[in-house]
Amino acid sequence: MQLERLIDHIVTRVNINLRNPRADVRPYVSGLVAEDKFSQYYAFYALTPYHPIYFRFVYSSLAGTYFLGKCEVENSVLYKSDIRGDELKKRGTVVKVGDSDVTVYEDEIISIRSSILLKTLVHNNSHDPESLEVFRIRNTVALHFSNIHGTCTEGLLLMPFGTVDLTTIHDCVVGNFSYVQAGDLSHEHIGDGLVWVRAEDAFEFKYQHPQDALKKYVDYTPGQTPRGDFMAFLEERKEDFMPVYASVLPDPQEDIPDTALVSPYAVLKGDCRIGENVLVAQRAYVENSRLGDGGNAQENCYIVNSTYDGMNVTAHGGKVIHCHLGQKVFTGFNSFLRGNESCPVKVGNESIIMPHTIIDAEEPIEIPSNSLVWGLITTAKDLETHCMDLDEFAKLKGQFRLGEMTFEGSGKLFVDGFRKRIEHILEENGAYFDSDDTRGHAQTTQGSSYSLLQPYPQGPLKGLCPTVSIGDSGQGGRF
Amino acid sequence: MQLERLIDHIVTRVNINLRNPRADVRPYVSGLVAEDKFSQYYAFYALTPYHPIYFRFVYSSLAGTYFLGKCEVENSVLYKSDIRGDELKKRGTVVKVGDSDVTVYEDEIISIRSSILLKTLVHNNSHDPESLEVFRIRNTVALHFSNIHGTCTEGLLLMPFGTVDLTTIHDCVVGNFSYVQAGDLSHEHIGDGLVWVRAEDAFEFKYQHPQDALKKYVDYTPGQTPRGDFMAFLEERKEDFMPVYASVLPDPQEDIPDTALVSPYAVLKGDCRIGENVLVAQRAYVENSRLGDGGNAQENCYIVNSTYDGMNVTAHGGKVIHCHLGQKVFTGFNSFLRGNESCPVKVGNESIIMPHTIIDAEEPIEIPSNSLVWGLITTAKDLETHCMDLDEFAKLKGQFRLGEMTFEGSGKLFVDGFRKRIEHILEENGAYFDSDDTRGHAQTTQGSSYSLLQPYPQGPLKGLCPTVSIGDSGQGGRF
Repeated sequence: MQLERLIDHIVTRVNINLRNPRADVRPYVSGLVAEDKFSQYYAFYALTPYHPIYFRFVYSSLAGTYFLGKCEVENSVLYKSDIRGDELKKRGTVVKVGDSDVTVYEDEIISIRSSILLKTLVHNNSHDPESLEVFRIRNTVALHFSNIHGTCTEGLLLMPFGTVDLTTIHDCVVGNFSYVQAGDLSHEHIGDGLVWVRAEDAFEFKYQHPQDALKKYVDYTPGQTPRGDFMAFLEERKEDFMPVYASVLPDPQEDIPDTALVSPYAVLKGDCRIGENVLVAQRAYVENSRLGDGGNAQENCYIVNSTYDGMNVTAHGGKVIHCHLGQKVFTGFNSFLRGNESCPVKVGNESIIMPHTIIDAEEPIEIPSNSLVWGLITTAKDLETHCMDLDEFAKLKGQFRLGEMTFEGSGKLFVDGFRKRIEHILEENGAYFDSDDTRGHAQTTQGSSYSLLQPYPQGPLKGLCPTVSIGDSGQGGRF
Repeated sequence: MQLERLIDHIVTRVNINLRNPRADVRPYVSGLVAEDKFSQYYAFYALTPYHPIYFRFVYSSLAGTYFLGKCEVENSVLYKSDIRGDELKKRGTVVKVGDSDVTVYEDEIISIRSSILLKTLVHNNSHDPESLEVFRIRNTVALHFSNIHGTCTEGLLLMPFGTVDLTTIHDCVVGNFSYVQAGDLSHEHIGDGLVWVRAEDAFEFKYQHPQDALKKYVDYTPGQTPRGDFMAFLEERKEDFMPVYASVLPDPQEDIPDTALVSPYAVLKGDCRIGENVLVAQRAYVENSRLGDGGNAQENCYIVNSTYDGMNVTAHGGKVIHCHLGQKVFTGFNSFLRGNESCPVKVGNESIIMPHTIIDAEEPIEIPSNSLVWGLITTAKDLETHCMDLDEFAKLKGQFRLGEMTFEGSGKLFVDGFRKRIEHILEENGAYFDSDDTRGHAQTTQGSSYSLLQPYPQGPLKGLCPTVSIGDSGQGGRF
């Protein structure tokens, strides 16, 4: 079987990269997915008039993977992943690198080679100033529900629920549920449950999840499906997606404002209300919830029995259950906010839930407006060491420690940077849409058509897709 | 809109070809399909380990069209057509041209350019000895339920329900429901309802359907959907196909022997029984019928309330209603055999129903075994002038006339040729399958995967597909 040999090839290449820190990715990938599944699921890609059309798939298995934008994949296995190129840099964009203004000379492309991505989200664009036109993913193994966001990787083992964000990675291992936003990273081994945000000469935020407590949520043995509350939560809702993937054009959602987009590959269940300019991406799940104007739910987000007052960003993989989020509350990557009927979670306006935060309410929890929230919180008392007023945080200078969180550098730069990024995300998503100039994903991805790409069903190439090139030199047309 | 300009381009090119006989194809194609439909339907193509994989689609609209095998389409509009390349010549095939043995130097390809094909079937391979590797369709307009079978065309207007078969066409017009199998044909205008089989220096069979009677079945005004009993029959059953196209992988049919294939894009309705080695192609329709071993139903075939005893070929577009067909009865292209409960039609073993035959029973009709049947038959008495024993027919020499049928030449060559062709069709379809060597379409198309190709949903390219190349240099694999 060529698919086995392809996996061998990838393992060999990644292992060459991972000599220091030494890691053998073979046990992580062998037998991970039942062989038949590679030939059972289709890949799908969106066509819109707003995104440059270019796909090139060579000698790869793409089962269940979604593509949007400009993308090439070679010698890789992408399984139920999302390769979303709707924030790639356009030709002519000017990027500031140090003191230089650098002009992007062609539309950026996501380029994946000799990699295995399993239920991984790839989004945003290359933040490697040495590779502005190519969002490069090479010799990388990324596991269950990991996020590769704005990060070029060359040699990476990214463990389940891990996130690399706005970073350049060269030969690193990043542990379960760790979040890394660290500029440029080479030959590092990051353990499990670290939340690390570093900006050179500006600040460094670090939080370490307690290892024992983390096991309740992510318990991972290489080569097996992770166990723990995160996976249990996802598994329970898996079936709801089946009708979505079974029909060629899933039913259009009703009662969605014209300015909002609920992907036909998302699930809306029970009584949902969707406001203006809302974006619900493919593989997002909304149940009995109200998303006020300008809110969004990205890939692998689950919003259940919750209310979003408006302009709420839920970053990729965020789960929000029995919560009430005030205006502009931001929920970071893979965060898990779980209230229940008797222990609801309430978050005040403009608060920021850091990426990879767990709030697992054992009693009602109320977070004041304008808070920064991080870590693992189960009781109101936990807030004392996992929550700070953003304006207070902005005053920090030098070194600071609170519980397992340490901060060093300029709190102001950290808070300003974060707020600016949230504004940028809202703009990109089309939350502020009111005219052609303020169009964002919620508007430009509307009315996409979705083509389905099936693998070879049998024979020596079973599970691989044929070589496919899709593209147009321009949208202007030939005649 | 680029799609309009593309249609303009095609009309211009075809009209240049059709200066003699002079024809203006514009009224035939303008407004023929509601503009929105071009962006509503997907194209789909099959992947199997048995067929060379090569598709190239450039600047074309392909709504609802099915592809199998090696095929390229450029500057064309293919609407709900079938481009079936499973009988293309393989590299190394030796073809006899006159006294020469000519070796095919590469796998043959279907190549369609500057053409409009509407619900047209394209099948078989090039019978143009000057173009063995390219099954060429150029500057051609083919209308509703026409068949281009084994025929290279360069300049052709093919009217609804028309068939060109094993011919080479250069600048011709072929009328409604005419069947032409004539070797090499240039600058001819064939009227409506002619059935014409000619083999140079061997024989010529001609039957002319009475024009007035034909109108009941096909009544066509350029630019409109044809009216008459054929279309009414098809329209009534159109809805049954909707669930088939709405789901990604239509439900597997039950009770189908392992050696038989019922395409997931076919309809089985009511109580159907499918024998061994049966082939039911995409867009075929079987209702309350029994298909004995080795039978088949090709594209646009409808078999309703009928029994096939075994080894029954139903050529593309054949409709068989309330009929009992004995062993090896052959039903030709677009034939319409309509019995009803009180007026059933029975056809004895090994009879041949000529292409484009209409049997519209006003009383029970029984056709003896080993008959050749042609023309328009509504009563048993009509058989006197539309039916002959095949062995008697084989004795014909010189000129012969019976009713509206004329025959000239060697009856033996005609009958032997036809019988040989039927055997060949049965072999190709896998009707005789019992080992790897006797595999045919019913076996090799089994377990195909079907990829869906969507057009641009909006914007200036609305209704066109992006440029797509799909292919593998070999099935052997890379590693």
